Amino acid sequence: MENIKVIGFDADDTLWENEMLFRNTEKEFCNLLSEYEVEHLINQQLLAREIDNLPTYGYGIKGFTLSMIETALTVTGGTVAPVVIEKIIELGRKMLAAPVTLIDQVPETLTELSARYRLIVVTKGDLLEQQRKLTKSGLMEHFHHIEVLSDKTPTQYKRLLQHLDISPESFVMVGNSLKSDILPPLHIGCQAVHIPFHTTWVHEQVSDKEKADHQYVELNRINELLTLL
Amino acid sequence: MENIKVIGFDADDTLWENEMLFRNTEKEFCNLLSEYEVEHLINQQLLAREIDNLPTYGYGIKGFTLSMIETALTVTGGTVAPVVIEKIIELGRKMLAAPVTLIDQVPETLTELSARYRLIVVTKGDLLEQQRKLTKSGLMEHFHHIEVLSDKTPTQYKRLLQHLDISPESFVMVGNSLKSDILPPLHIGCQAVHIPFHTTWVHEQVSDKEKADHQYVELNRINELLTLL
Repeated sequence: MENIKVIGFDADDTLWENEMLFRNTEKEFCNLLSEYEVEHLINQQLLAREIDNLPTYGYGIKGFTLSMIETALTVTGGTVAPVVIEKIIELGRKMLAAPVTLIDQVPETLTELSARYRLIVVTKGDLLEQQRKLTKSGLMEHFHHIEVLSDKTPTQYKRLLQHLDISPESFVMVGNSLKSDILPPLHIGCQAVHIPFHTTWVHEQVSDKEKADHQYVELNRINELLTLL
Repeated sequence: MENIKVIGFDADDTLWENEMLFRNTEKEFCNLLSEYEVEHLINQQLLAREIDNLPTYGYGIKGFTLSMIETALTVTGGTVAPVVIEKIIELGRKMLAAPVTLIDQVPETLTELSARYRLIVVTKGDLLEQQRKLTKSGLMEHFHHIEVLSDKTPTQYKRLLQHLDISPESFVMVGNSLKSDILPPLHIGCQAVHIPFHTTWVHEQVSDKEKADHQYVELNRINELLTLL
């Protein structure tokens, strides 16, 4: 890859683990409601509710907590015990306070890359939550700044390039989600590097057809960027 | 004021009305719990809960909704009816969907100023909520971009100036909150213009002592900026 000036890094499941926190919380949530419904049907209702709520609540733990409360009301037919609501709120708080677990080789790779490129974090979701994770991660020093987008659409990436005042060819996006980190930047002429994470939220998954239509690099581990760039 | 290159505008209660939406929702929330407690004591508990929750939830309607649910659990001694939780969630959704009411003279003033200065929105709180309001407001075209800070501290304003690549003297901040829009920018050497709004959240109020220590301009209406600048 040539002429790269700025590297954008996705954060959740690219720099640190995130998806497992949601999976584990979903398990605990289903346990709270186990007398009303079986696990996979509760999960199904929660997922549907989350996706319905995305335009209203956006991404992040607060919206997820509200979606869990709404699902508890539905699953119990409006008879949920107040103590269950209390415990759901506790689940949300536990997520917000969770420690940040870095993905292997991340600090070493960023140390080397930040000497040669301007690095930024490009993440979507809740501003406070993402800033807090970046602070906890200890990675802040490697990044020029953090860009939190409300969603990762081609339009929002275009606005980001304008804001950075660079051409699409000078920007490469690195991330684990084809839907959010790879396809939209490719769509507006940027380069993109996919580093899959072992777990992907259903809502972020894309079909093989969509994948086949696009040209991007796929790496197994983040430190392979050092030989690629 | 001389040498100004960039004008930062606070959004809530500077460009459009916001605080009244919270006051009105608080009233409806108290009505939901009127069989348990009198209005001013419920409000007192809600306010305490909101302030306690700020470091965890940050600013915005989702955090406010969770604070209402938590307050309902406390006020009722953990016996809140599920239908009350449902109605609180509805109150939150109603706030998120509320139309944006512009403050008098805002579009006219921005039209004139944007021909002479780079204008940005500098707001705190929830990214998605603020972007949505800016879109609904129809004011987007006047602004170079929107900066959503997780809180308006001197450190965050400093980071903003670095990001904008300008010196403090070239930046003036305009807003209704002394605590968020005026004192922190003054603290780092920027200029500031205070335009009070008739209602200020208790948590945003500052003492006369703090006010007396600082030099800033106070205007009654936003269009007075045109003669000031």
